Amino acid sequence: MANEKLWGGRFKEATDRRVEEFTASIRYDMRLLRHDIEGSIAHAKMLGKQGIISNEESEKIVAGLISIREDIEKGDLRFSVSLEDVHMAVESALIERIGEAGGKLHTARSRNDQIALDIRLYLREEAATILQLLAKLNETLLKRAKEEIDTLLPGCTHLQKAQPVLLAHYLLAYREMFHRDSLRMRSCYEGINVMPLGSAALAGTSIPIDRGYVARLLNFPRISKNSMDAVADRDFAAEFLFDTALIMMHLSRFCEDLIIWSTDQFGFIEMADSFTTGSSIMPQKKNPDVAELIRGKSGRVYGNLVSLLTLMKGLPMTYNRDLQEDKEPVFDSVDTVRSCLEIFEGLIGSTVFKKDKMMQDAKTGYAAATDIAEYLVTQGVPFRKAHAIVGRLVGYCIEKDKNFDELSLEEVKMFYEGAKTEIFKYFDVERSVAGKTVSGGTARQAILERIKEIEKEREVS
Amino acid sequence: MANEKLWGGRFKEATDRRVEEFTASIRYDMRLLRHDIEGSIAHAKMLGKQGIISNEESEKIVAGLISIREDIEKGDLRFSVSLEDVHMAVESALIERIGEAGGKLHTARSRNDQIALDIRLYLREEAATILQLLAKLNETLLKRAKEEIDTLLPGCTHLQKAQPVLLAHYLLAYREMFHRDSLRMRSCYEGINVMPLGSAALAGTSIPIDRGYVARLLNFPRISKNSMDAVADRDFAAEFLFDTALIMMHLSRFCEDLIIWSTDQFGFIEMADSFTTGSSIMPQKKNPDVAELIRGKSGRVYGNLVSLLTLMKGLPMTYNRDLQEDKEPVFDSVDTVRSCLEIFEGLIGSTVFKKDKMMQDAKTGYAAATDIAEYLVTQGVPFRKAHAIVGRLVGYCIEKDKNFDELSLEEVKMFYEGAKTEIFKYFDVERSVAGKTVSGGTARQAILERIKEIEKEREVS
Amino acid sequence: MANEKLWGGRFKEATDRRVEEFTASIRYDMRLLRHDIEGSIAHAKMLGKQGIISNEESEKIVAGLISIREDIEKGDLRFSVSLEDVHMAVESALIERIGEAGGKLHTARSRNDQIALDIRLYLREEAATILQLLAKLNETLLKRAKEEIDTLLPGCTHLQKAQPVLLAHYLLAYREMFHRDSLRMRSCYEGINVMPLGSAALAGTSIPIDRGYVARLLNFPRISKNSMDAVADRDFAAEFLFDTALIMMHLSRFCEDLIIWSTDQFGFIEMADSFTTGSSIMPQKKNPDVAELIRGKSGRVYGNLVSLLTLMKGLPMTYNRDLQEDKEPVFDSVDTVRSCLEIFEGLIGSTVFKKDKMMQDAKTGYAAATDIAEYLVTQGVPFRKAHAIVGRLVGYCIEKDKNFDELSLEEVKMFYEGAKTEIFKYFDVERSVAGKTVSGGTARQAILERIKEIEKEREVS
Amino acid sequence: MANEKLWGGRFKEATDRRVEEFTASIRYDMRLLRHDIEGSIAHAKMLGKQGIISNEESEKIVAGLISIREDIEKGDLRFSVSLEDVHMAVESALIERIGEAGGKLHTARSRNDQIALDIRLYLREEAATILQLLAKLNETLLKRAKEEIDTLLPGCTHLQKAQPVLLAHYLLAYREMFHRDSLRMRSCYEGINVMPLGSAALAGTSIPIDRGYVARLLNFPRISKNSMDAVADRDFAAEFLFDTALIMMHLSRFCEDLIIWSTDQFGFIEMADSFTTGSSIMPQKKNPDVAELIRGKSGRVYGNLVSLLTLMKGLPMTYNRDLQEDKEPVFDSVDTVRSCLEIFEGLIGSTVFKKDKMMQDAKTGYAAATDIAEYLVTQGVPFRKAHAIVGRLVGYCIEKDKNFDELSLEEVKMFYEGAKTEIFKYFDVERSVAGKTVSGGTARQAILERIKEIEKEREVS
Repeated sequence: MANEKLWGGRFKEATDRRVEEFTASIRYDMRLLRHDIEGSIAHAKMLGKQGIISNEESEKIVAGLISIREDIEKGDLRFSVSLEDVHMAVESALIERIGEAGGKLHTARSRNDQIALDIRLYLREEAATILQLLAKLNETLLKRAKEEIDTLLPGCTHLQKAQPVLLAHYLLAYREMFHRDSLRMRSCYEGINVMPLGSAALAGTSIPIDRGYVARLLNFPRISKNSMDAVADRDFAAEFLFDTALIMMHLSRFCEDLIIWSTDQFGFIEMADSFTTGSSIMPQKKNPDVAELIRGKSGRVYGNLVSLLTLMKGLPMTYNRDLQEDKEPVFDSVDTVRSCLEIFEGLIGSTVFKKDKMMQDAKTGYAAATDIAEYLVTQGVPFRKAHAIVGRLVGYCIEKDKNFDELSLEEVKMFYEGAKTEIFKYFDVERSVAGKTVSGGTARQAILERIKEIEKEREVS
Repeated sequence: MANEKLWGGRFKEATDRRVEEFTASIRYDMRLLRHDIEGSIAHAKMLGKQGIISNEESEKIVAGLISIREDIEKGDLRFSVSLEDVHMAVESALIERIGEAGGKLHTARSRNDQIALDIRLYLREEAATILQLLAKLNETLLKRAKEEIDTLLPGCTHLQKAQPVLLAHYLLAYREMFHRDSLRMRSCYEGINVMPLGSAALAGTSIPIDRGYVARLLNFPRISKNSMDAVADRDFAAEFLFDTALIMMHLSRFCEDLIIWSTDQFGFIEMADSFTTGSSIMPQKKNPDVAELIRGKSGRVYGNLVSLLTLMKGLPMTYNRDLQEDKEPVFDSVDTVRSCLEIFEGLIGSTVFKKDKMMQDAKTGYAAATDIAEYLVTQGVPFRKAHAIVGRLVGYCIEKDKNFDELSLEEVKMFYEGAKTEIFKYFDVERSVAGKTVSGGTARQAILERIKEIEKEREVS
Repeated sequence: MANEKLWGGRFKEATDRRVEEFTASIRYDMRLLRHDIEGSIAHAKMLGKQGIISNEESEKIVAGLISIREDIEKGDLRFSVSLEDVHMAVESALIERIGEAGGKLHTARSRNDQIALDIRLYLREEAATILQLLAKLNETLLKRAKEEIDTLLPGCTHLQKAQPVLLAHYLLAYREMFHRDSLRMRSCYEGINVMPLGSAALAGTSIPIDRGYVARLLNFPRISKNSMDAVADRDFAAEFLFDTALIMMHLSRFCEDLIIWSTDQFGFIEMADSFTTGSSIMPQKKNPDVAELIRGKSGRVYGNLVSLLTLMKGLPMTYNRDLQEDKEPVFDSVDTVRSCLEIFEGLIGSTVFKKDKMMQDAKTGYAAATDIAEYLVTQGVPFRKAHAIVGRLVGYCIEKDKNFDELSLEEVKMFYEGAKTEIFKYFDVERSVAGKTVSGGTARQAILERIKEIEKEREVS
Repeated sequence: MANEKLWGGRFKEATDRRVEEFTASIRYDMRLLRHDIEGSIAHAKMLGKQGIISNEESEKIVAGLISIREDIEKGDLRFSVSLEDVHMAVESALIERIGEAGGKLHTARSRNDQIALDIRLYLREEAATILQLLAKLNETLLKRAKEEIDTLLPGCTHLQKAQPVLLAHYLLAYREMFHRDSLRMRSCYEGINVMPLGSAALAGTSIPIDRGYVARLLNFPRISKNSMDAVADRDFAAEFLFDTALIMMHLSRFCEDLIIWSTDQFGFIEMADSFTTGSSIMPQKKNPDVAELIRGKSGRVYGNLVSLLTLMKGLPMTYNRDLQEDKEPVFDSVDTVRSCLEIFEGLIGSTVFKKDKMMQDAKTGYAAATDIAEYLVTQGVPFRKAHAIVGRLVGYCIEKDKNFDELSLEEVKMFYEGAKTEIFKYFDVERSVAGKTVSGGTARQAILERIKEIEKEREVS
């Protein structure tokens, strides 16, 4: 046999060495070793229970697999590239250790359903970790929101001062986004949590296996329903890549704000020294590198999604080797999102909010303009007219370089004849915020209600 | 006032004509007219109920909005580009028709929450339509699977014959994919189905509106919980674009198979004349254009997803004009997926499966090799050894240019000494298929069970 | 003949109406009408010259084509969707007008090479237009740079003040980017400018045509060299989509800066009223919508690139109907980039730079720190030590809330014993800028040299 | 100093350990070590020549850098993650080795221009390697085209038999694509080949360096012209990622064809055992894994392009830490494209073309239909009419299950009354091919001319 691969029966020439290297996935799929062995143990136990192999063989296989895992973890065992992938590497090591019985492990199984199982075991675990990290970040946001329940922030649209809001409101807006991310990731988890083993190469098997038993051993609530689909499907991975892309999108927006807020000109925040870095040439610099890197890393996570979608496009049924390329983007997005969530939680947890500057900026820029317009509405002025009146008033203020609170009643009357002294109350930004008691609004009371709601939900879940 | 826009109060110069054109969305957001008016009617009713405007004004507004909708539908009313967007166009027309009362409609509302409402109303409807189209396609697949419950197909991995399967099994594999698409789209629907109105520009409003009432009028089960998030959020649109990307990915795979199957060389199918087209130069051609176009259209739907993810990346809070660019990719993916699902259902429903050619191909190519290996396993041969034996047997057959059923027992014994006559039974592809009775396997019985399961689920839902 | 299409000879059933609509490109490829007719005229002249058709027929065809073009332009002729595409529509109209001779136009031609020709004619024109728009934008940048040759700007890295630069230097940095875009677009133009007609369906033709003659009539310097490649190739379109993606990337960066600069907090610029818009609810708002929209439109142009790359992935040779989907992304990127370049030129041309605020910000934030370190280097201090000394000095200043120019010599000596009075000269930001005379640096003189260089290059080209 | 970083002067707290890990690029940018040291040597020589440091210091630095490179290459030196990046690691090691003089290396330099230099040095080298690999692949294609100059292939459009072509023509079509890739990569090389050092952090430097001298030492024909642009620019990397994406797109198409051609049903090729792999469960399988993997790897290269475009979108000037994320996608695309080009060249070089099956398929399927139509044209039948006649003839043949050469003259006359015996000559596919003598056509003679042209060009370049 020129080709000593486990699949080499019909081959006459050895595999080209460059091809061996090119097709091998063992450099990166060793990350699945723990899951591969976990799956193989369950498979071996089932083969034994069903009498497909003897109980003794089954036990030998299980013991062999455990010893391989231990040796790898201790660093006593290393696999060569010629072993192609983690599955072949484990199987070869097993045969070497326990002899002929090892050759029985792959009964009623193909690498096609085995790899589908391994990735699902892996991703199930990682999805759970990401859910925890999202929860932890949201805890921190909630904590900081409570701390900043009285801090005023000039709320922006178009990055222009629009209306004053509470900083707590801003922080909880991101909590909503990450909460949606959690819901999506939980739904993704459900899609991952399906047991494909027993689909074999594509058609199922004629050997009397018990798929439900394997599922129970591996704690899967469901088994896959169509063997062809089971080996061809990577929807769950694509969904995972999309869900992580949205997490990164949210983080990129948050980081953008923090980067702008930490400029001299804004001066809304001071990041901790431990979460910033300096310049190799400019001694005065303290750069928001962490926030920038997170923002930039949205690129790679988007790229990973495009990568998988591209490779799946137009693939004929069922398994094609192209699918081997699913793993690296998934691994990379897992690593990226995990580290970004963790680091960002530290960053936002240690950032100092400079309330005075925020307050000062909230007070200027005519942020109460809408409130005055809304006040005019209560005086019977149609909103469109009220909007125009206040618009012209703002124009006048800019020309005269005045803030609202520097106007006299006479000046106001130039634009709205009916103006009374009480209108000046509406020039106050704190009153503006306090008035937004509508559900979901930025008034202290509305926010406290929302916090109560969130805390209640948390208890339940 | 140089600038006659509804927002022009503080502006001294008129908008540059090119800017007007550049920033206008009215060319494409007229598609939201029906939803915009629906939302405005609910808003006006609420303003009346709350006494923010008088009942008379509220009724005048509602009547005015209805008459505008009718005139647009009849083609009696056309909006100019200088009106920017559908919201401004409707409001202007309203003021023109009913006078000052029209200027009260925009009370306690901003275009920021208004557009969020409009898109959600629109997408909710479209998501429901897509769910129906997916259901219809799955009905057709189920019907065709039942018809082809006895048709043998050479199942492929790597586009190489692997093991025989039933065509029904293949068709139902796609049914699984589209079923997952339905689950995802339903979950997306839940995310869309949240009422944002009342968030105003970003902070909520001080006017005593009733958001729950608006939600009930518009049939929303939930309202948004944070006003800043509500106007900045396009997660639901991104999720929709991803879900449609996966639908297109599945269709692109199915089409790829159909295109290959309709080659002369495969000859597995004959597409209906009504679903194919010809060549302007080659008179003999009958091209699978429909399948190719669907495959190609995966590109635009992927592109739309990238488009939205890119524009959201790094956007500061809250609303930014960039968000206006969310609409065209969403509209395009809606149109594309709707037409592709509908057309594909027609295509797959009218395609003739050429059973003889499928059967003939299933019988050659040593597709029963795995079955023989599995048989040897039952004879006590470890799987790895069995695999090697059959591998060498195949090598021999190729050299001698023989199919399995042309071998003599002596020849088989050259590779497996213990061979008995019964081994020949395992060379039969129909027996191969019939043996795959494992749950999710390709045996007739396993498929019929799955069909029963599907039909039961359908009844329940 | 059930199917009355021009290609319908072998078909028995009529095309399904939905399929007709689905496969038709006439809705959008009418944009190629002018180019299609231009190409057909050249083809007809060549057929006449070669004696493949009579001169009389050739002249009749040319006249017929011209009359069709005129009628379309006048709005006197409209094509129905059942005509599929612009090619079929023109040919049908021609046959209707001039009878049998019209049926000779398609001799030695296929829609496969015809559409390749049409897109190349179209894109060649559009690439030239974009080159002009880039040149115009660069003229404006040069003009504004000259105007702002003495304006100081706090140069940023990480959006943190880093070192003072001249605003002219900043503006010319973008000029470099758009200049590279021009070089790329010119190279793309070369790739487009190749004549594919004569490749027919994929194999060339046996009819004695003269491809060189057609090329000369249509002003192409080269003809395609392989007929299979010629009908399968869309590289030039992908390259065009990439080049436009980079243009949009550059614009998105420029717009990002302008948006940040137009915040109250930065206050570096004031955009013209005619290039900004207001808010429907907040009367005080003046939003940088144009810049935001351009930034957001980078998304759609990126998406168009992904769209084409996706559809080309894994396409078998040669022409496949998927390729029909190349047109809409190309058209959309053409429209987007053209309008963005034009509008942005207007925006940057009309923006007021607020020199005082820029200067004030350049003076604070220790932007001269690097200059002091460089001064220490000239005093024999190794750079790393100098960097550390100045770093600690900055730390001291921040603690004491002092700017550099508020320090006493004694205070400076606490960090660098050898300090002499002359060190204070290096605290000056104008001196800092003036010192950067290195080629490519920000000193006035270096910039003027660069401007001279640019103007010289321009004269040559 | 709590923070012992080289930039730590103004910092009071140490960097968080997780942040250190998160921001470090040293895991992957060690790949730039050789280029970093090469650049630093040139910089040190220039500093010496200009008298900015002493000649002795300059020589010490150069010697120190060389010894570091050697130790790294021998594996005697390893850098820790706390050193952030390759630049800091080298500088630290240098200071450790040669003392204070080492601290002078970073004079008049920032990591911003240093990294720009390193990537350009690296990519310049890799672009050259890819050009060589493209040339080698094209040599192989040319060689194989010459070998197959008489092999007939059924040319396809829509994957349907269209017209017969020569296999050589098909192979040379790909040669055209890879040739365009070379032109693009050469143009990209020009864009890379610009020397940015001396731009310092963003503004240039006040130290009297000689940028031209550094450029000459490092063999750069041009220096960058604007210091802000030079540190903010990654256009060359984006262009590289696009160019590699197109290469992969071409490879994915070629692989798609090869995968289809190696099916049992097509049987046009037999890949070498050494370039294929088997199945772990199905002993008979010989899978085109290499071709599939290459096709699949188009996904990651597309993803890398999206990754960089995304991260560049909306980045403010000038350098931002996001840019650190440019490296991994570039490295990955370099590795992927290099290995794919190399492996593919081996694959196509060792594939056996099965001429008999190709010929047999070329003869069936009415591939000569267009030739007959073109013959009718020479008989004075307008092309449209000729197309319709032959279309109906094909319909008749399909109904009667006959090939063209099985028709009698009487049968042909049923569709074209004027038919003479000579028409049968045009049913011959070899004649069909031989007739396509048009420039760029598939006739033997046309191909030989093209080969001569290619070989001539090669000599010149």
